[in-house]
Parts: sequence; structure tokens; C-alpha cells
Amino acid sequence: MTDIQKYMHDVGRRARAASRQLGTAATAVKNVALLAMAESVEAQAAALLAANRQDMEAGAQAGLDEALLDRLALNPERVAAMAEGLRQIAALPDPVGTITDLNYRPSGIQVGKMRVPLGVIGIIYEARPNVTADAAGLCLKSGNATVLRGGSEAIRSNQAIAGCIHAGLEQAGLPLDAVQVVETTDRAAVGELIRMKDYVDVIVPRGGKGLIERVSAEALVPVIKHLHGNCHVYLDDKADAEKAIAIAYNAKTQRYGTCNTMETLLVAEGIAAQVLPRLGKMYAEQGVELRGCERAREILSGIKAAEAEDWHTEYLAPILAIRVVADLDAAIDHISRCGSQHTEAIVTEDYTRARRFLREVDSSSVMVNASTRFADGFEYGLGAEIGISTDKIHARGPVGLEGLTSQKYIVLGDGQVRG
Amino acid sequence: MTDIQKYMHDVGRRARAASRQLGTAATAVKNVALLAMAESVEAQAAALLAANRQDMEAGAQAGLDEALLDRLALNPERVAAMAEGLRQIAALPDPVGTITDLNYRPSGIQVGKMRVPLGVIGIIYEARPNVTADAAGLCLKSGNATVLRGGSEAIRSNQAIAGCIHAGLEQAGLPLDAVQVVETTDRAAVGELIRMKDYVDVIVPRGGKGLIERVSAEALVPVIKHLHGNCHVYLDDKADAEKAIAIAYNAKTQRYGTCNTMETLLVAEGIAAQVLPRLGKMYAEQGVELRGCERAREILSGIKAAEAEDWHTEYLAPILAIRVVADLDAAIDHISRCGSQHTEAIVTEDYTRARRFLREVDSSSVMVNASTRFADGFEYGLGAEIGISTDKIHARGPVGLEGLTSQKYIVLGDGQVRG
Repeated sequence: MTDIQKYMHDVGRRARAASRQLGTAATAVKNVALLAMAESVEAQAAALLAANRQDMEAGAQAGLDEALLDRLALNPERVAAMAEGLRQIAALPDPVGTITDLNYRPSGIQVGKMRVPLGVIGIIYEARPNVTADAAGLCLKSGNATVLRGGSEAIRSNQAIAGCIHAGLEQAGLPLDAVQVVETTDRAAVGELIRMKDYVDVIVPRGGKGLIERVSAEALVPVIKHLHGNCHVYLDDKADAEKAIAIAYNAKTQRYGTCNTMETLLVAEGIAAQVLPRLGKMYAEQGVELRGCERAREILSGIKAAEAEDWHTEYLAPILAIRVVADLDAAIDHISRCGSQHTEAIVTEDYTRARRFLREVDSSSVMVNASTRFADGFEYGLGAEIGISTDKIHARGPVGLEGLTSQKYIVLGDGQVRG
Repeated sequence: MTDIQKYMHDVGRRARAASRQLGTAATAVKNVALLAMAESVEAQAAALLAANRQDMEAGAQAGLDEALLDRLALNPERVAAMAEGLRQIAALPDPVGTITDLNYRPSGIQVGKMRVPLGVIGIIYEARPNVTADAAGLCLKSGNATVLRGGSEAIRSNQAIAGCIHAGLEQAGLPLDAVQVVETTDRAAVGELIRMKDYVDVIVPRGGKGLIERVSAEALVPVIKHLHGNCHVYLDDKADAEKAIAIAYNAKTQRYGTCNTMETLLVAEGIAAQVLPRLGKMYAEQGVELRGCERAREILSGIKAAEAEDWHTEYLAPILAIRVVADLDAAIDHISRCGSQHTEAIVTEDYTRARRFLREVDSSSVMVNASTRFADGFEYGLGAEIGISTDKIHARGPVGLEGLTSQKYIVLGDGQVRG
């Protein structure tokens, strides 16, 4: 065993031990910890900002790009948002222990399901130090111990935040090992974390595609993740044109860099000539580059031709692929071939087509007459999310407290035996 | 690409295509297929038995052991049970498309969850040909395409059963690729199946520990499995002695080879002298070998001493480890150190201890005053099970139709956009 292996196994062992205590911790105790963490973040704001300044300076010297430095930066507003996030998590209902479907069986036993924590969650993330507080808070509320492995560029910020988290745990009488921030920046630590099946129950990678691909390829521990967000809006020929234009505009332009932003617009032939010219102008005003199929380019003259790979691309930028399709079937077919199973929306007033789209499109979120930008934990009422899953097992879509839990069976009897 | 790789990728591609049709197939159509399969199994009974005789003869010549040959054997009763199983699956409610938790959000959108198939399920199993019909039936009802890889010793039986399944699919107008039995006995096919992430959504291995360990170690596709069933019953000193004796006797002796059979009996000090002598006699009458801790051996003179490894052993045989413990805390501690998170039961009349045991024991099934032998899909009301999961994510305990599905988010709006 290398030193890193020994260190990580020790972290894992301590996380597992803490998870046993955390799994049965009372809701009130967890909330005391979360509120105390929020207070500590506020009280230590100056120290957090100072630690972050050191990270920023080291990052600038190391030549990190502007976007990365922006994600790394803390300021008084971001620190306040971290504290507020912890308070919001404290206010969410505790999913742990909820019993559902408790029914009597012919044998006389009662069988139901109890919601229980997963155990130990490993979070692997980059740059953004606020993930340290958000993820620790969500995992704590759902009764899980957490091992946090942030980017090396944020190590001082993350350790300062960890100090606040530990202050909160201490005040509530919870084990400090419930939230551990990995202290080494050695990348071998990540390799260990994602392989320690005995100590870690699930890995949540948050960050760029490179990170997520690497983690999923090498992990032996199950991973909750989303890789791509190639989201579609389909404007049906039975759509209300005003709704169609409003949604297609919002889904692309409300924010460009988010995973639930529309990347390809599908338009039914029967409505294309009516909506595309107006949409074309609105996108142009926002500086959105359009790349169209042949038919789209006949309507929107002067736009670029879409290449085959455009239909598969998550731009995360002011670029939009536009394709005119014959009908709903062609739209669903395009989505099933080119989509990433993240979020797709139809705009239509047709009842049967809406119903078909909801059933037949196999994505983590499927919408009728709403912007794809709604696909997130806050908008869905989960309170906060640890991430969005485009996997098919365990959890799909925004993953909140419930996604960090599982259900065990409980059986209540009066001495029943099996005959 | 080797020939096996090409073959398996072709199987996978066809399964993926069939899963798209199956995912939206109407309940009535799936039921027509299941009932037609049952009829075909009955009509083809003679042919199935003939194919099975060939497998049995080849198996005997190859020197397969008695237990394996017994699992491999079909007879008229087992064939009838296969048909009956398919009819029972047809009678179960269809989970696909069920919408729950559809609520209005402050933005005006309605957000809910729709239950959807996982997609393509790979089943890897040994000997028992009835798994071919059971697994295909459960996967079909839950809207999933199936790739079945049985043991080479059962290849003729499995292909004969596959013929009946295809007859049923054909009669219902469903694609034959919805259920594919892998035609090669080359073991490389398993290696491909568990790595084809693009074509297979989940793997369910059924069989001995060797198979399950191999599959889990090498799979890139998520696996639903249970490895060990080291189940415990804890007789609390506040137990009703009659219930304690009945449950401890039933949990061990009702069947020895099942995963939910008790393997270690934990007895509180305060009740040991009252219940162990009677239990010892009852076990002795059944020929159950007892291996006790020091204290247990003082009460049950003449029994073997338990070694350290006995506490971790799933005997699957008429052998039982017995340990006298101080109290509930010691019992829970023993279970958390030695258990396999499968099924544990407490026998007690004490309300608070029952409540603590339910909450604190982290197993897929946790019981009060009932025999561990109840931990199965039929007894729980799932109708049938594809297996039992001791994993923590996605599904724990008996996995029925619901465990073969997932939930996607659906959003219904009136043109809402995000502000």
C-alpha cells in the first residue's frame, strides 16, 4: 500500500464509522449542525475570503484561465449564498425514516419500505468552493457521511469551509468524520476514492466532461452523474405560435452554459415558415449563431449549414442547431438518435401528441409547453440538488435529498413463521 | 473485433431497437404475449422435456454433480410451474407509465414522475432453465428488452423455451428481439454482455457466488445482485418465548439452501437459559449442527465451538452459529460487523427496542417478530422477483417489476418560461 492508499483507506474507514452514527441521527440534531455551519460560515467570512485570495493568487500564477478563476472566486455575496444554502437545507423535510406502502399481507405480516441513507458519498469536484458547503449539507441532511475531494486549485478555500462545517458538527455533537475534506492534492487520491467499494457507497462527480468521463470509466463504486445535456425543443405544427416562440427563445437564451439549455431546435414543417423568421430575428439580436438543415436555411437565409456532428453537440454557448422535421414521429426519432436523455420539450396544443411525447421520449425530464430551463432541483421543488442524473438506474433528473437515500423493506409481525 | 464481439454487439443493437418498441407497448399487448407464451410452454411441453433430456444426458456424461443436475432437470410439474408463472406475471399490474407526485410549482408548471422501463436487461444465470421464462416474463411486463445468457449445460432447454417465448411475442405482434437467448456457449460472450454500456442498461446475475463475484468485478454495466445472505435472528430478553422459539426454528429449518435462511442466532443473556435448551433439542431433531460461543456452550453442552469465521459464514446447510449477547446494542453491533445486509429479525415485545432495531439495522429487509424466510417477492406482494438486491443504490431487497423500472420527471406547462 502506498501512503496515499493508506491515507484514503483511513479516511474511508472513518467515514464508514461516522455514517453509522449519522444514519440514525435525529432530524433536530442534523438541523442544529446545519444552522451552526451557516453561522460559522458567516462569522468566518473574512477568513474564508482570505483563504480564497491565496487560492486565487496561486491560480493566477499557475496560469489558470479566466473562466476557472471566476468559478474559484469567493466574494461576500457568494459566502452569504453558501450560508443561506445551508439554512435552506435545514428547512427541508428529512427523508430518512419515512415509511411508505405499509400493507398487511395474507400471511399476517405487514410489509413496507423505510427510506434510509446510502451510507458514504464521495464528491469529486473542481474549482467552485461553494460545492463543499452545498454537498456536505445535502449529504448530512440525508444521513450520509461525505468524503469531499475538491480541485487542488481550491484547496485552501475548501479547507477553510471545512473548518466551518466541523464547527457545526461539533456544536451538534455529531462526529467530525461525518464530513471529511481530502487533504492531499495528489490525484492518486481520486483513484482510491472511486475504488474503495468497502467504504464508499456512491460517487458524485461534479465538473467538466473530462472529469466525469474519467471518473465513470475508472470507478468501481456506483456513480451518479450526467455527462451530456444535448437538450431539444420540438415545435409541433399544432403549437400555439406565441408559446412556441417564447419557449424556444427562453430555452436557448436565458443562460447559455447550463446543461438544461436547448442545443437543437426541431420545428414541424407546418409551422416553420410561421415561427422561424421571428425566432431568427430574436436569436440574432442576442448574437446566437444559427446552424440549420437545408429546409431551415431556405426560411432563414444566410445562416450556416449544420454538419452531422452539430446534431450531437452540446454547445454550452450562443450557438443553436435548427432542423425542420416532417412531424412528431420524425422529432422523436431525431431525439432518440441524437439526444443525451437529459431534457426535451414539446410545444403543442394537441392532446394526443403531448401524451405521446411524454410517454415515448426517454429522457430524465420530458416537458410539454415549458422551457427546458426548468429542469433543476429548485424549480422541481427538491429544494436543492447534488447534481442531475442522466443514468437510468437509481435516480434520473435532478437529484436532491431523496436521491441520496434508498429504501429498505421493513416487516412487522406477531410471531409469524413461513409454512 | 472478434466474432463473439460482433455477435454480441449485434444482439445488443437489436435489443436496444426492440426496447424502444417495448417501452411504449400497451399493457394489453404485453399481457397477450405473456399468456400466449404460457400456452406455448404447455403445448410444447413434450419438446421442452425432450430438449431437457438431451441437456441432462450431456450433463451426466460431463460429470456434473447431483445438485447441478437437479437444478437443470425439467419435469411436467416444473414445466407447468413455468406456464403458471407467466400467467401470474400477466395478472400483475403494469408499473410502466404510472405517474406520481404531480404537483403545481410556484412557477405554474406541474412536476411529477413517470415510471419507465430501464431499457435492456442482461440476465446471466446457471443451470435452472425456468429462469429463462421467469426473467423474460418479468422484463417484458416491465417494458424491458432482455438478453438471456444461461449456462452452457442448459443450452438446449433454454433454446426450446426461447421458442415458446418467441411464439408468444409473435402472437402479440411484438418484436422477437425483445427476448434474445444468447446462442453461443463461449464464455467470452458474458464478458461482452457485461461491458456493452451502449446496449445494456443493467445486468442481473443469478446463480452461485462465483458467478456473481466474477460478474460484479468485471461489469461496466450496473449490476443488481446479492452476494451473501448471512442472516441473523436476535432473540431479545423481552421476547415472548414461544414466538422466539417458533421464529428461530422456522428461520433455520424451513429451508436450508435459501438466501434468507438464518445463519447466526443471537440470544440475549437474559433469555438464553429459557429458550436455548428447547431450541437445541428441536434443532437436534432436525439434524442441525450447532456451533456456539462459550456462553452458548455452557447452556447447550456438547455443541461445537464457533470459530471466528463462523460469524461470517453463509452455511446454506443444516449448520447454525449461536451467540449469546449482552443486549440489543451488542446484537446490532454484531450484525453490523458480521452481517451481509440481507435480512435480519428481532423477536421482542419491547416497543422501543423494536423501533430501534428497525431504524438502526442497515439491511435490505429488517423484521420484528417474523421469520427471515418471509424475505421474498411473493411474500412481500411483488408477485414475483427477478432476484434480491443487497446493493444500496436503486433497489434493496426483493426486486420485482418496479425494480426493473426507473422514474423520469415530467413537466406540464402552459407556455411557462424561466425568468
